[in-house]
Amino acid sequence: MRRDTRSGLLDAAQIRLAEHGYAGTSIRDLAADVGIKESSVYKHFRSKQALLEGVLERAEERVAATAQALGVSVDDPDAAASTYATIDLGHLTAVAEGFLQMWLHDEEFVALRRLLTLEQYRTPAAGTLLRQLVVTQPLAFQSQIFARLIDAGAFRPANPEATALAFWGPVLAILTLAGEQRAEAEARRLLGIHLEHFRATHVTDAATQGEES
Amino acid sequence: MRRDTRSGLLDAAQIRLAEHGYAGTSIRDLAADVGIKESSVYKHFRSKQALLEGVLERAEERVAATAQALGVSVDDPDAAASTYATIDLGHLTAVAEGFLQMWLHDEEFVALRRLLTLEQYRTPAAGTLLRQLVVTQPLAFQSQIFARLIDAGAFRPANPEATALAFWGPVLAILTLAGEQRAEAEARRLLGIHLEHFRATHVTDAATQGEES
Repeated sequence: MRRDTRSGLLDAAQIRLAEHGYAGTSIRDLAADVGIKESSVYKHFRSKQALLEGVLERAEERVAATAQALGVSVDDPDAAASTYATIDLGHLTAVAEGFLQMWLHDEEFVALRRLLTLEQYRTPAAGTLLRQLVVTQPLAFQSQIFARLIDAGAFRPANPEATALAFWGPVLAILTLAGEQRAEAEARRLLGIHLEHFRATHVTDAATQGEES
Repeated sequence: MRRDTRSGLLDAAQIRLAEHGYAGTSIRDLAADVGIKESSVYKHFRSKQALLEGVLERAEERVAATAQALGVSVDDPDAAASTYATIDLGHLTAVAEGFLQMWLHDEEFVALRRLLTLEQYRTPAAGTLLRQLVVTQPLAFQSQIFARLIDAGAFRPANPEATALAFWGPVLAILTLAGEQRAEAEARRLLGIHLEHFRATHVTDAATQGEES
């Protein structure tokens, strides 16, 4: 079953690249992982670099799926804005905590994040994908949502892009701190004070009263 | 001159580790870099891992020196607070732009940042140092400064730690974006809107009027 072998090779490559980096990953080990001869690997991938590119290509699809799952896809900001029109601290907390949960505990996401981190200097496409996953995509989506909330009077007048940076920048700093230390309790504490501060500095009294009524 | 050889080996190791990672760095190449025999390397370092540890040890001192150079050392927050008592947007901009400048253009810092990034999963000490350099140290320092500015009425009442996250989190997100793409103009644009937004949401009118008079 050639297609399964190909997919198995991509799985194995993703794991080894995330664990040992490009230089520490060999075609021989990957062949052993999926139980084929080293020479058979080349029926599916021309080179180790081609295997890496296959992993990145698949990762790109998963990045898009991840954004959808977290409700931060930019496909339809208008539809999302109607959800976010009734935004409250709980809502923002859920988005940020969903990302934190995935960042720390989703094995697939952790492997992908490590792989992109390790490959970013050698393979520019990996760096682009990493930035897209953790910065560009969330910021673009949030800017659009916050623009609508500012227009609707639920948020105080402000630059929507700056508002998105004020929301997402601290979340990223907290994720960086939590990252590999598994300092999860501290991360959750900081997330709590960040979200409370963001609400106090950005959400209007009218919107807050709306929540309470 | 044994001491120069040792220091030369550390320099060469830092460059190669930043460029190729641990697995992609060989004792043989390092020996060639400094013009000694492979076996002579072992007079200075027991193993490749020992060389890495030497690089990290030296990096730790440089991280402290960097914080001093940027005026974000936590040695004496009281002394710093008197400087920051007259803080204005220009001042904050200078700190953030100093970091951006170093992040993108200081070869030594760029190599160190790459090395720590690549080593963070294999060597926990590298991850700790990376987080200290880019998150923990700046946040701890800023929390103390902002606490004093809030007490002095220059900043609006707020949680100082949340205020530090609101200042530094977006800077980190912007640095991540600028990172390897050399998207420097875009980074400076975002830094400008972030700093203006931070001033508007945190600095009191009294402090702003003080600046203007």
